[in-house]
Amino acid sequence: MRASVFIATSLDGFIAREDGALDWLPPGGGEEHGYTAFIASVDAVVMGRNTYETVLSFDTWPFAAALPVVVLTTRPLTQAPPRGALVEAMAGTPQEIVARLAQRGMKHIYVDGGITVQRFLAAGLIQRMTITRIPVLLGRGIPLFGPIGHDIRFTHLATRSYTGGMVTSEYLILGAPTD
Amino acid sequence: MRASVFIATSLDGFIAREDGALDWLPPGGGEEHGYTAFIASVDAVVMGRNTYETVLSFDTWPFAAALPVVVLTTRPLTQAPPRGALVEAMAGTPQEIVARLAQRGMKHIYVDGGITVQRFLAAGLIQRMTITRIPVLLGRGIPLFGPIGHDIRFTHLATRSYTGGMVTSEYLILGAPTD
Repeated sequence: MRASVFIATSLDGFIAREDGALDWLPPGGGEEHGYTAFIASVDAVVMGRNTYETVLSFDTWPFAAALPVVVLTTRPLTQAPPRGALVEAMAGTPQEIVARLAQRGMKHIYVDGGITVQRFLAAGLIQRMTITRIPVLLGRGIPLFGPIGHDIRFTHLATRSYTGGMVTSEYLILGAPTD
Repeated sequence: MRASVFIATSLDGFIAREDGALDWLPPGGGEEHGYTAFIASVDAVVMGRNTYETVLSFDTWPFAAALPVVVLTTRPLTQAPPRGALVEAMAGTPQEIVARLAQRGMKHIYVDGGITVQRFLAAGLIQRMTITRIPVLLGRGIPLFGPIGHDIRFTHLATRSYTGGMVTSEYLILGAPTD
């Protein structure tokens, strides 16, 4: 089982404003910067409850109807997913979530949202991160990264920049298990 | 008068560990990534007291002897600069510092250190930022950016990556005055 992150941040490292707003992202997510190929490669999306609620507020459900979305929460989901969306609430440690999804035959999961990314990183369960820097400072917001107990070294694979000013860097995480 | 920033950060946005340590930077600053041309273009370096004390702890003074270094502090400097180094303590707002250095005929200053960069950015006095991302998460440390009262949009000029995994992006700051 592999787990990847594919996420945009402001130059000061925020993935959303404090209230979850994404108005500072380029319209429509900006130029195609690898997301289409990435999302086609994953078997499920794993996100926290806050990210799920932000996604629900979008005009349209951003995932293919057949793509399972796992929402990490200890409480039942109160907001129903859109018709046809495959959404499941799950609780547990990152290790438990990965084990459960691997048992279902999943090989590649997309980990999304600040707290969830931080928990999976701390557990050593992320193998690849694609970070797109949007050329704006927000000053405050929900950070992508948080405190960790030790340095985590990444290996840079590739960086591409786009005419809108987005810079997308792809990293492997050294030492993270790949199976 | 123009002011530029040329700085390295961890992927989680820190310019030093909490105690100021820079041990996570590549040895010798890593591959040449534009610093030589940049430092030759500046008339002075402006930094806060904390950054100055970190610089003093280096084995060698990292600036040309003839390059003035302005240390922003309201207290006298207690640690003497190395023989031959041009160091001056100065107090005032970013506007006052820029005006004073412009009066001396300076045309381009290098603003360095987290708090000082944040103060000059908030004052709209930085025109160019070159940010080099080192492929490591530190988890905690001294942040490059801090709270600001409003979004600041940047224009991406160029990004280059280096075999050691460093990614250097150069930005102009929209709306910042250039004279």
